Amino acid sequence: MPPSSVRIGLLGCGVVGQGLLKLLRERERLIRDSVGAPIQVSRVAVRDPGKRRECELSGIHVGTDAMAVAEASDVDLLVELAGGEAMLEPVRAALRRGIPVVTANKHILALHGEELERLAGESKTTIRCEASAGGGIPVLQALDHGLRTENFQLLVAILNGTTNFILSTMARDGRDFAEALAAAQTLGFAEADPTLDLSGQDTAQKLSILVRRAFRMDVAFSSIPTEGIIGMELEDLRQADRFGYTVKLLGIALRHPEGLDVRVHPAFIPKRYLLAAVRDEFNGIYLRGEATGSMLFYGKGAGANPTAQAVLGDVVVTARECVSGVKLLGTPPMRDPEQRLPLDQVRTKYYLRLLVEDRPGVLAQVAANLGATNVSVAQMFQAEGVRGEASITILTHHAKDKDVREAVAGIAKLPTTRKTPRAVRIFDI
Amino acid sequence: MPPSSVRIGLLGCGVVGQGLLKLLRERERLIRDSVGAPIQVSRVAVRDPGKRRECELSGIHVGTDAMAVAEASDVDLLVELAGGEAMLEPVRAALRRGIPVVTANKHILALHGEELERLAGESKTTIRCEASAGGGIPVLQALDHGLRTENFQLLVAILNGTTNFILSTMARDGRDFAEALAAAQTLGFAEADPTLDLSGQDTAQKLSILVRRAFRMDVAFSSIPTEGIIGMELEDLRQADRFGYTVKLLGIALRHPEGLDVRVHPAFIPKRYLLAAVRDEFNGIYLRGEATGSMLFYGKGAGANPTAQAVLGDVVVTARECVSGVKLLGTPPMRDPEQRLPLDQVRTKYYLRLLVEDRPGVLAQVAANLGATNVSVAQMFQAEGVRGEASITILTHHAKDKDVREAVAGIAKLPTTRKTPRAVRIFDI
Repeated sequence: MPPSSVRIGLLGCGVVGQGLLKLLRERERLIRDSVGAPIQVSRVAVRDPGKRRECELSGIHVGTDAMAVAEASDVDLLVELAGGEAMLEPVRAALRRGIPVVTANKHILALHGEELERLAGESKTTIRCEASAGGGIPVLQALDHGLRTENFQLLVAILNGTTNFILSTMARDGRDFAEALAAAQTLGFAEADPTLDLSGQDTAQKLSILVRRAFRMDVAFSSIPTEGIIGMELEDLRQADRFGYTVKLLGIALRHPEGLDVRVHPAFIPKRYLLAAVRDEFNGIYLRGEATGSMLFYGKGAGANPTAQAVLGDVVVTARECVSGVKLLGTPPMRDPEQRLPLDQVRTKYYLRLLVEDRPGVLAQVAANLGATNVSVAQMFQAEGVRGEASITILTHHAKDKDVREAVAGIAKLPTTRKTPRAVRIFDI
Repeated sequence: MPPSSVRIGLLGCGVVGQGLLKLLRERERLIRDSVGAPIQVSRVAVRDPGKRRECELSGIHVGTDAMAVAEASDVDLLVELAGGEAMLEPVRAALRRGIPVVTANKHILALHGEELERLAGESKTTIRCEASAGGGIPVLQALDHGLRTENFQLLVAILNGTTNFILSTMARDGRDFAEALAAAQTLGFAEADPTLDLSGQDTAQKLSILVRRAFRMDVAFSSIPTEGIIGMELEDLRQADRFGYTVKLLGIALRHPEGLDVRVHPAFIPKRYLLAAVRDEFNGIYLRGEATGSMLFYGKGAGANPTAQAVLGDVVVTARECVSGVKLLGTPPMRDPEQRLPLDQVRTKYYLRLLVEDRPGVLAQVAANLGATNVSVAQMFQAEGVRGEASITILTHHAKDKDVREAVAGIAKLPTTRKTPRAVRIFDI
């Protein structure tokens, strides 16, 4: 007999949780018609139950013990929105007893995704996480459902709204990094401590979640070479523009004959790319599939309402499973393990910007360093600077990543080099 | 007991059907793991069984009677790829006996979608049609699943690859309409008889399918005001570019307080819109939702492989239903019927281009016609022509669509007007 209602245990009741409660109430009839039974929130665990919240909690048991909610007999579906490593145990506990989980917690998914999926499989239940990567964009469900059987060759994604806002603001308004970061913080697009975003770690977490589905392969978050946008200068964005590029922080997964190449770094991308038009706090996920060809998903990667809607989308599908007693299509099965192509071996183009002493012979020294590691120059420009300094901009042809980095390290050590060289990869395939 | 395999009856075996058979074979293991049982094609109905096909049909019963396939006892799932009104009866027959249908037939869905959905509901089965709108883009499943409970205010979409290719080619290469159409035909992006595409009818059919899901409302295809791109001149695209716009053939659904405004027509859209970067044969669907905000889905709207992959995506979800005996989430339930806002009453901006006699007083006559119907001019430019003619370009402020059309009809009748005025709406909200 189908249950008379699906009872949710909710961990965390911040802006996303409150947004979810609001949507559950406002769209009650449609949800009930879709699921085949009403959804009720029976329990909520929060850190501070006394805190003022803009949502109706009457009739809901409010406590502080997340584990008690995960193990409560009146919970059919666990929704985890508290975030962080502390939520790992409650999520495990729910899955172990066959209770499905919907979570927005990119941290535990990136670090323990393989284990959690396995636990869900063993208990014949599901864990869904649409909101954990790409925020309000329904890309994970698309990969689980309609695109489940597609073979993808390439995924390139802008997954972090904070850094995309900063880069967009610098490029559009000619502001420097610090000013753009301050603007992002004022507008609520950046946290007080933005380290996770700026370092590329947030992008790498989300990328590992997406790669699992698109390539059906476990890629440990810690194994992803990751560079952030700290150190990016307005002058780099101006040079990018001059050469027909836009700068974006990318998560990349690219299938080569030698293995899967997964990495996170800022990159120059051609302005004609649709991803170049993904600006401000928006996210974009570009996929290239064997049968489907090019595809892009675009939308808000964060924010209370888009995230709450993504969670609700997962809740409705999962509640339908609870009512029907049948597991629908969850994360696709993994492929046989594949080789990885280390970043050192990836062939890529580079943009280099050097500040050197303005005197004869310096350019020859720079060229010698590049030549020594077989890095070939596509374009080179020298601008006269002030105080006897000159600025050199170089675009390279494709070369092994390791070789370019070696050459740059050599150039950095030259006595005529006045500042650590800037080096940004060009993604143009 | 779950069936040992899901048996497909396939109607039509052209390039999409052959592509589907190829994907079913190549991805057999992943499909079986996902569905919980293998998928087999038991029967195929084609017009000419003797025709050479690049796919293995051994072990499959090949005939010419579509109805016999729809009614065969060894068919668990009907896949209809033959297209056209003739397929309505077989699809009806399958749904009536509770056999789910996957179809790419925009024609029967646009004309009989309401009836077919009702039939499926009565038989507790489903009809899915991802490939019928947006081709390989998984937007219908996203609207059925993750976005099922979202309230959308706006849908603007480029749904026809042929016309988008023609407009892109005209704009980029400076070719006129006839040349661009010929290029599209050479490259296989346009049919020998492109009337359905050029007239906007194809876009209107797809729009009615999308609106059903995004707005949960039945909008009869025949009720959609539809204009195509026939008559579009290179000079119109040049003027668009001059004012910061790009010309696209759009399907639009916009919720106003007075009702839902649904229409198909070419439009000037600002170059900053992401849809402006959807070029050549690609499709793009922009949605604005109450919780999710702006969202765009981009990909190939046609072609054998993208379409076959979209069909396969539906087949896998539907086959999972067959195996589990549970209906998952199909088309969302319809809302209570809503008002429609007739195009006459819609307020929009217009671009007008007139060819008039180059003599004093003509501009005053034009202005008088606009003023008489309360159409206010935002910008006006007059270029001297040859042979005593002058070209006048006008961008209007927002005005009632009916009023602008009345003014244009008045201007067309002026004795000083040398050619039917060009009038294109500006979509900029």
